[in-house]
Amino acid sequence: MPAPFTTLDEFRTVLAQAPAPDAVATAGAQDRNSQLTKPPGALGRLEDLAIWYAGWRGTPQPQINTPQVIVFAGNHGVCAQGVSAFPPEVTVQMVANFQHGGAAINQLSKAFGARMDVHALSLETPTADFTQGPAMTEAEVIDALQTGWTAVDPQSDLLVTGEMGIGNTTSAAAIATAILGGEAADWTGRGTGVDDAGLAHKTEVVAQGVALHATDDPLEVLRCLGGRELAAMAGAIAAARQHRTPVILDGFICTAAAAVLAKTQEGALDHTVAGHLSAEGAHQKMLDALGKEPLLNLGLRLGEGSGAALAIGVLKGAVACHSGMATFAEAGVSDG
Amino acid sequence: MPAPFTTLDEFRTVLAQAPAPDAVATAGAQDRNSQLTKPPGALGRLEDLAIWYAGWRGTPQPQINTPQVIVFAGNHGVCAQGVSAFPPEVTVQMVANFQHGGAAINQLSKAFGARMDVHALSLETPTADFTQGPAMTEAEVIDALQTGWTAVDPQSDLLVTGEMGIGNTTSAAAIATAILGGEAADWTGRGTGVDDAGLAHKTEVVAQGVALHATDDPLEVLRCLGGRELAAMAGAIAAARQHRTPVILDGFICTAAAAVLAKTQEGALDHTVAGHLSAEGAHQKMLDALGKEPLLNLGLRLGEGSGAALAIGVLKGAVACHSGMATFAEAGVSDG
Repeated sequence: MPAPFTTLDEFRTVLAQAPAPDAVATAGAQDRNSQLTKPPGALGRLEDLAIWYAGWRGTPQPQINTPQVIVFAGNHGVCAQGVSAFPPEVTVQMVANFQHGGAAINQLSKAFGARMDVHALSLETPTADFTQGPAMTEAEVIDALQTGWTAVDPQSDLLVTGEMGIGNTTSAAAIATAILGGEAADWTGRGTGVDDAGLAHKTEVVAQGVALHATDDPLEVLRCLGGRELAAMAGAIAAARQHRTPVILDGFICTAAAAVLAKTQEGALDHTVAGHLSAEGAHQKMLDALGKEPLLNLGLRLGEGSGAALAIGVLKGAVACHSGMATFAEAGVSDG
Repeated sequence: MPAPFTTLDEFRTVLAQAPAPDAVATAGAQDRNSQLTKPPGALGRLEDLAIWYAGWRGTPQPQINTPQVIVFAGNHGVCAQGVSAFPPEVTVQMVANFQHGGAAINQLSKAFGARMDVHALSLETPTADFTQGPAMTEAEVIDALQTGWTAVDPQSDLLVTGEMGIGNTTSAAAIATAILGGEAADWTGRGTGVDDAGLAHKTEVVAQGVALHATDDPLEVLRCLGGRELAAMAGAIAAARQHRTPVILDGFICTAAAAVLAKTQEGALDHTVAGHLSAEGAHQKMLDALGKEPLLNLGLRLGEGSGAALAIGVLKGAVACHSGMATFAEAGVSDG
């Protein structure tokens, strides 16, 4: 569906007016959970996940049938500063790999029964180098937010947003420094694999960008330091909220995009769960800042939505137990 | 297939002669992994899992198509000592629930495409109360080991062993104390949910059992302090090794059964991975003793194989990426 905003201020209003979970469905799911054939609490976090999912979907006994994975790709002018271990042409090469089914995210989407879409955002026109000026104009950031918004299928019952963009850990670190506080060194990591000298240089580039674009407005930070794929993920996460579709967040870059929403509107990530803890150094700190506990911790640092796609399995398992198990009464089992 | 042992000594010989992974397949999988379209190491533990799986299956590009979940159920004479929050009749009630598809493990097996089998082991004849004498005769423990062995389908390409048995955390804690060292209090936890007084009593019961059956032989410990479902899990894990079928270990009770094998024959668990960290207190300590790092940590403490079944998704994801991804050469992607 068309995006209901044409300016950053209108996008801010959309976030402020976002729907809440269904309290009746949540209560119904809690009641059901207490009657299932297991000791109380024995399914641990799976129980909380299923109840949370039920509330957002508005039914006490939900199913997950139509998960959607969307990979957004963008190019970054800041690559001119030599911040990545890979050359920028890899972005377009990997988009072709996604389209031909050869990337990790293709295999994971298939393994967990998710539809996968790829959106390449003006790869031939990288964002501006944020050490020289704002990465995007307002028109450009709005266009990327709208692309993300409209990419979400309203019929999807679970969303994963992933990304590809050589240089985008640099952008994500700059956004985190600007909106979550601390120093550039707190948020800058090795990305796809820069060495010690590369890391020191990348940190300096992040610090320069943050110093150049001092602002208190997280959406303005997204415009000045972000990339198109980060803005598109933010737009998609916001659209999912509108459809009351739960979202599994991926790693460092996806979480940085999500943090822009959280800092713009309190509670804007209530419909999201952290899929995994990335091996990118500052991801734990970022999740802590957002109050999110990751479902998985397997040392992934690939992006593409891969960690979140793997976590679709956990969420499917949680919902399958919740909605498929017999109650003590149905099964004739003594409840202790 | 029929079990190749009729005594504990013959079972010991089977463990000693167990096959190793295929070194050529392992090397082939390592080589393939290094060529896939991702930064080196970016899939973290998924890469190690896929290579490990490939080695055991004897092919550098394996698939997971026929996972098998087996739930073994047994009753425990030690329940006479009042060690559980649930009455012993729940074991047979839950077996009926498994057979009718109503338990958590049914939903998880279905969600991850696994065949599920249930074996109830002489539920009408509980093991003897181990505070009074050996839980099983040699004939009984051999029968349970054989049941476990023959329950494994040689065509399965992944195995999960789960259990149901009111009182079996008491048995597992006693086994752990006897073969892994320390005090009863180090290994005794709340199981399905005993209170503080119940925990103190349960710990005393474990200590009594361990004191009564002092032996250095882990298989003799299994006979004297175990249960039929624990012996059956040990038999199934050993059979899987014979078929070079990787195994995902479940929680506290499954891991205690597996520990009997590890303490009988070094390397007997090389074909296994720990599926999850249970919320049962001493599970971390038990995994540490076996050198196993769990794949998941979601606060489950249900048994039935539930945590391991959830981890089927992780292993399927790992193998799907490894065997399905394009190489840099195939995809025409620059490799940095």
